[in-house]
Amino acid sequence: MSAPGQREFFTVRTVSEALSGFRPERRTPVEAVTLGDALGRVPAEPVTAPHALPGFARATVDGFAVRAADTYGASEGLPSYLDLAGEARMGTPPEHEVRAGTAVAIATGAPLPPGADAVLKVEHTQSPTPELIEVLRPAAPGEGMVRADEDATPGADLIRPGRPLRAQDLGMLAAAGINELPVYARPRVAIVSTGDELVAGATTELAPGQVRDSSAPALAALVREAGGDPSSVGIVPDDRAALTKTLKQTLRKGSDPFRRVEGSLPHSDGCDVLVVSAGSSVGARDETAAAIASLGEPGIWCHGLSLKPGKPTLLADVGGVPVIGLPGNPRSALVVFRLIGMPIVRMVGGCTEPPPEPSVRARLARDLPSAAGRLDVVQVRLAGEDAEPLFGSSSLLSILTAADGYIVVPEAATGLPAGSEIEVMLYR
Amino acid sequence: MSAPGQREFFTVRTVSEALSGFRPERRTPVEAVTLGDALGRVPAEPVTAPHALPGFARATVDGFAVRAADTYGASEGLPSYLDLAGEARMGTPPEHEVRAGTAVAIATGAPLPPGADAVLKVEHTQSPTPELIEVLRPAAPGEGMVRADEDATPGADLIRPGRPLRAQDLGMLAAAGINELPVYARPRVAIVSTGDELVAGATTELAPGQVRDSSAPALAALVREAGGDPSSVGIVPDDRAALTKTLKQTLRKGSDPFRRVEGSLPHSDGCDVLVVSAGSSVGARDETAAAIASLGEPGIWCHGLSLKPGKPTLLADVGGVPVIGLPGNPRSALVVFRLIGMPIVRMVGGCTEPPPEPSVRARLARDLPSAAGRLDVVQVRLAGEDAEPLFGSSSLLSILTAADGYIVVPEAATGLPAGSEIEVMLYR
Repeated sequence: MSAPGQREFFTVRTVSEALSGFRPERRTPVEAVTLGDALGRVPAEPVTAPHALPGFARATVDGFAVRAADTYGASEGLPSYLDLAGEARMGTPPEHEVRAGTAVAIATGAPLPPGADAVLKVEHTQSPTPELIEVLRPAAPGEGMVRADEDATPGADLIRPGRPLRAQDLGMLAAAGINELPVYARPRVAIVSTGDELVAGATTELAPGQVRDSSAPALAALVREAGGDPSSVGIVPDDRAALTKTLKQTLRKGSDPFRRVEGSLPHSDGCDVLVVSAGSSVGARDETAAAIASLGEPGIWCHGLSLKPGKPTLLADVGGVPVIGLPGNPRSALVVFRLIGMPIVRMVGGCTEPPPEPSVRARLARDLPSAAGRLDVVQVRLAGEDAEPLFGSSSLLSILTAADGYIVVPEAATGLPAGSEIEVMLYR
Repeated sequence: MSAPGQREFFTVRTVSEALSGFRPERRTPVEAVTLGDALGRVPAEPVTAPHALPGFARATVDGFAVRAADTYGASEGLPSYLDLAGEARMGTPPEHEVRAGTAVAIATGAPLPPGADAVLKVEHTQSPTPELIEVLRPAAPGEGMVRADEDATPGADLIRPGRPLRAQDLGMLAAAGINELPVYARPRVAIVSTGDELVAGATTELAPGQVRDSSAPALAALVREAGGDPSSVGIVPDDRAALTKTLKQTLRKGSDPFRRVEGSLPHSDGCDVLVVSAGSSVGARDETAAAIASLGEPGIWCHGLSLKPGKPTLLADVGGVPVIGLPGNPRSALVVFRLIGMPIVRMVGGCTEPPPEPSVRARLARDLPSAAGRLDVVQVRLAGEDAEPLFGSSSLLSILTAADGYIVVPEAATGLPAGSEIEVMLYR
């Protein structure tokens, strides 16, 4: 670990090193949520089927429950004949049994009567009299039905711990009668903004030299997208003592700057992830680094990413809590947080299978230079099949708002020629 | 329009016809939200910059504000010399002017002093004495700085109406001092479940033949993903009169089965989208169709989609409100709602630029048969580069929970051979 100020000794890491190697211990506690609030939440434990699903053999077509053996050899030229023994009603236990030589009328979804092992489609029958079925095609055992345990056997895993719940997972849990389940609490992510030039977003009149804090609300939105619960701690001047005091307070066990989520367990040991949106000058960055270095062990893990924009990024582990020092330029801060911060928030929130990111293939509309050994993130605008790179200062948010997505030029590449087929990660 | 019961005269449409042609008029009213609640919301009007952004010319490097002309021809062999006239401080109006032959020290982000038109990087200078700067490389006008209106000119559009707000859009609005903006209210989507076999998800003990309502909670989750506010109206038996009564009540102006979202405008004219999760038998479907047909003009738009699974889908327009009759099988219902229902919810909620869907390229692991003239949706499990199709009854939710995504076999195709490169739309 290097002391702040000695910039030549800083530990610079690649983005993939950071993603695989920076793994502070903190995980959020487990809480119970009801199914109605469970979309996107991360299950903390396996949930198994308490009984077979659907629980009874069901017809999947409208027709007649039969013994398949009774239909063998039947054809339009030489039909078989079965006696109609009644009707299987929707939602009620079967009243009739299917004996050899008989059939029971059944609608899609109704329970198969005892004795039946197939459902003959109504289209493959005729009814010469109300009591007689003419079978025009044979049915194989299991045809036109699902078994009692075909959706789930008793004890089968219904969902995967560590993967955010999707709509169909909620459907499956509902089918199994599970109305509440254990999930990881949303990681509480504290965002501290520093910068002598920053004023709150609500400020209507600016003095020359002042800018409103645009990073905090944008970072809060990315925290939400990653399943976290963001809290903006406020703006601290570029002063080491003031910043250190604020960071220590935010991390302190017992403090709770967070609105409580209804139904969550008490959980007031500071924050789960600490994000410092640093001042943009070298001096401000050094003060931030010094303040973070003073927080505690094991301390700073990397001070610099081989990434453009986003080099002046700092990652630290303070007693298991990930601390992310972001570059001061808003565009750089958002690029780094999307690449590194969102995966950290997901990890702390128990997510082991992150949801997929949207991407499209496109054709690079012009040459893109890049330095080897550094990952480049370049915003692009899409026009049909073409991706037009957008260039400009890292201080400009308009590059990000004009962009439909971004491309990543890997460390090994020294640039991409116009016409390259590229993958564009889409902003949504 | 065809009368229910005459199945051979039903209007069957393709999915793309439905997406482009079924456009009931209902749009949600406009309400104001604060920036903290605006992620993913759909702006109803353009929002323009009230003043230039960043509002003042800023340094983008640490160094010295200069007149570029004073540095022309400077080199390490033949440096130019400038008098240091002071320092530009972060967040405060410039105190010093840059006159010919002088320079002002400046940090990244600080306001450019009057007279300066470039910032020289500190690395391209030396300071032989505290009052003197040695210029080792020339600076071009505009170098090392951004203009006062480089992020936005006054009156420039900051966001796009109709496109859900992204993190960076919130950052740009915050930078402009905009803390509240008009968005479309979340569409209130009423979900009515029908089926004699259905019982509420909370039911612990099932009688043989009963199944818990799994579609309603899964559909509610998809409504949320599409930006809507779902409300489960409950379970109605497969009885035309009972269903008609419930549907009319749900649509009636003045009724409001919805929890009120804090801060939203009063908005109690029934629902904005009505979803009927129909019984699965032919009889139940006919009852549902008859009930929907009786609701009002212009009425049923299509009764059947050339889609598998999902053929028995009904779309109707009742006084401008879209009514979606879904198939009874849970898997079919979720496939149809993702393809057709979510775009309708987004449209009603003012969305003209839907957010991108995640997809990946994969290789089809085995032959996939398909009938021409019908769109096939096939769930797949991903294993490395391979996509393994999952087959089974439309009644099985486990196919959906086991799937990582799905592929679409277009109407024109008669199947896809193993090894085909395919695009997998990912469930998240």
